[in-house]
Amino acid sequence: MQAVLLSIGDELILGQTVDTNTAWIAERLLEWGVMPLYHLTVADDLPAITAAFKDAAARAPLVIATGGLGPTEDDLTREALAAAVGQPLVTDEKSLAEIRAFFARRSRPMAERNALQAMLPNGARPLPNSSGTAPGMHAQFSGCDILVFPGVPSELKAMFDPHAIPLLQKLTAAAGNASVILTAKVNTYGDGESNIAARLGPALMRRDRHPLIGTTVADGIVSVRVRSQFPTREQARRELDATLAEVRAALGSFVFSLDQQSLAQVVTELCIASKKTLAVAESCTGGLLGSLITEVPGSSAMFRGGWIVYSNDFKNQQLDVPLDVLQQHGAVSEATALALAENALKKADADFALAITGVAGPTGGTPDKPVGTVWIALAERHSPATARLHNFPGDREMIRDRAAKTALNTLRLRLQNLSSSST
Amino acid sequence: MQAVLLSIGDELILGQTVDTNTAWIAERLLEWGVMPLYHLTVADDLPAITAAFKDAAARAPLVIATGGLGPTEDDLTREALAAAVGQPLVTDEKSLAEIRAFFARRSRPMAERNALQAMLPNGARPLPNSSGTAPGMHAQFSGCDILVFPGVPSELKAMFDPHAIPLLQKLTAAAGNASVILTAKVNTYGDGESNIAARLGPALMRRDRHPLIGTTVADGIVSVRVRSQFPTREQARRELDATLAEVRAALGSFVFSLDQQSLAQVVTELCIASKKTLAVAESCTGGLLGSLITEVPGSSAMFRGGWIVYSNDFKNQQLDVPLDVLQQHGAVSEATALALAENALKKADADFALAITGVAGPTGGTPDKPVGTVWIALAERHSPATARLHNFPGDREMIRDRAAKTALNTLRLRLQNLSSSST
Repeated sequence: MQAVLLSIGDELILGQTVDTNTAWIAERLLEWGVMPLYHLTVADDLPAITAAFKDAAARAPLVIATGGLGPTEDDLTREALAAAVGQPLVTDEKSLAEIRAFFARRSRPMAERNALQAMLPNGARPLPNSSGTAPGMHAQFSGCDILVFPGVPSELKAMFDPHAIPLLQKLTAAAGNASVILTAKVNTYGDGESNIAARLGPALMRRDRHPLIGTTVADGIVSVRVRSQFPTREQARRELDATLAEVRAALGSFVFSLDQQSLAQVVTELCIASKKTLAVAESCTGGLLGSLITEVPGSSAMFRGGWIVYSNDFKNQQLDVPLDVLQQHGAVSEATALALAENALKKADADFALAITGVAGPTGGTPDKPVGTVWIALAERHSPATARLHNFPGDREMIRDRAAKTALNTLRLRLQNLSSSST
Repeated sequence: MQAVLLSIGDELILGQTVDTNTAWIAERLLEWGVMPLYHLTVADDLPAITAAFKDAAARAPLVIATGGLGPTEDDLTREALAAAVGQPLVTDEKSLAEIRAFFARRSRPMAERNALQAMLPNGARPLPNSSGTAPGMHAQFSGCDILVFPGVPSELKAMFDPHAIPLLQKLTAAAGNASVILTAKVNTYGDGESNIAARLGPALMRRDRHPLIGTTVADGIVSVRVRSQFPTREQARRELDATLAEVRAALGSFVFSLDQQSLAQVVTELCIASKKTLAVAESCTGGLLGSLITEVPGSSAMFRGGWIVYSNDFKNQQLDVPLDVLQQHGAVSEATALALAENALKKADADFALAITGVAGPTGGTPDKPVGTVWIALAERHSPATARLHNFPGDREMIRDRAAKTALNTLRLRLQNLSSSST
């Protein structure tokens, strides 16, 4: 079964607001095996909204729309739905009473325009809204069910389950569509999208495979998406788990997490589980690595702190990088990276220390150390420190992002090695 | 003139990724007086993408699409564009050489599938991509210009200006758009959107004013957008400048920059202009402040470095905050903030030092120091340090963001005071 998702509003069309409702609804629909056919966003424009409703109703048995239910003159979704289904707008007395009660509870006068929010196409059903003044609507038109919710995300989210789920149950049962879709995402770091696809191999990447596998890349992280659609929830879950196991086996240690978990979250959890502490010394990333780690709630259990060693003086005075190392090898060198990591480890009395020093650009590159040259060192209590040279592509922002993530990934691989060798 | 925006990808249709590209493009188009007619999102499905291109080309003179240019089998945008314009896919040798060079620079083998990214419909023009392997495409079809960009936001943003703006200039000129639209943005920090609107007053905020003024808020920064549409470029520029002067006069020192300039860029420029250096000491922000400063190219001229004093040990051992201060007043206190700033100043031998210590949450709040409590201190060579208590709303991410920005704004106001009193 398919559905069309409509978003209505000038603020969306003009790009002033990013539409997060549609992705949220799409994820909910998937749980019922309902696939969005397309998402369409239109302006607060009566003919455009009316046409969008009509086209959608002709193409799918379910349409879910958000937005344009407010009390002001640019809110036209009610009128458009009435025009699309060919019915006049009528006042729903129960909704009007609820809107009046909403204002009374807040001891605020009700503007007369708010009464318009109690109007809906003749024959449509109002969907009560406990957290705002705009009730939603449920209309039926030439075999299509149309649900309309307010565009305010908190109101949509509060209203969706009580009003949409009973309908989804009914429609999916009637469609005999006994299918359920479950999805998952496997996140990898350290290789490009095409190489990850090559590692998965043609059998896993086949377009007619069930469950279906796809790859996406965002900020250096290649994610493998798995979509499992089967007649029963049990089968969808079993097949999803089997495919996830195949994906993990094919990709090995490139895999760092499932779903929304970040590299910094994984490193934080691994450190806490193995009772290890971390310190950082950052030159070209200037605090970004520390910031990624401390974004994670609870990171104070493993993160001791760090040094932003941006200037050479700072590297020498705060982390004792010898001046002759800085002069002979330069700030961007294996020797400097190792000294930063080793001295950060000692001074912070930590179990691990990560150090980053590189050329983030746009200036400062030389023929033998071009922009993108970054040394990353890992020091470890009772072990010799190691450093590796990287060449990151892109602009300053991308080079810094990849440097910080690669540092996290270096520690992640070390911690996973430790825990697998201890078991 | 109107445009259609297409987003392509299963991860968007399934709701696994929120589409931020479309809003970003819509905002850029508006600067050229180009209004999106609709935004459409379709799956990685050849017939759906092909139909989307054809429908869009029939309805608007400009189509901008993102996504589906990756090297894997689920990336079908090239094939769909070829089908829509009725041309075979051919290899562009220059693009292929660029893709090979991309991998060579990174000393990584190129998967054969990446060669597919050098293919484009016969007659289409490749749009070089300096930060990834997928070139974009520019095709023309029955009077419509179609631009296709990668879905990776950083690649899109790097490619848009060089490739889209010359076309927008040509199309809007050819549309005989007798009017010219110039826009500008005045960025403020330190007050809410409704208060900024109140300071501007009803005359400036009138909906029928020319130039038209609107406000938007993003991540704590309230921006006043001015849109100046007049018959000639000279008049549009003159009217824009006059309105900008009125806006600046109404908002005074809340204004920190114009257009895309960040708080960190302003602080960096002010420091460099007055030959001042800066050090930082960060507790709850964990490196975010340093990261914002070092995002700015050239910040090494004024930023000496800093300390991420995440644990109490670190505050005591690295920046000499007395243990009795930490015990008596706590890590989140005026005394700790002042000690951090003063000692960072001295140890770094800097002209200014900013220190941040607070409760970012979600845990760690107490009745007298709830989540969002943040002390920000500014130390200055030859002057007493000052600290101020802030209570930021929102979640961990928002509290950390506001703390770092407020620290930058504190220094910005001090530097602007210095430069105005010296003239």
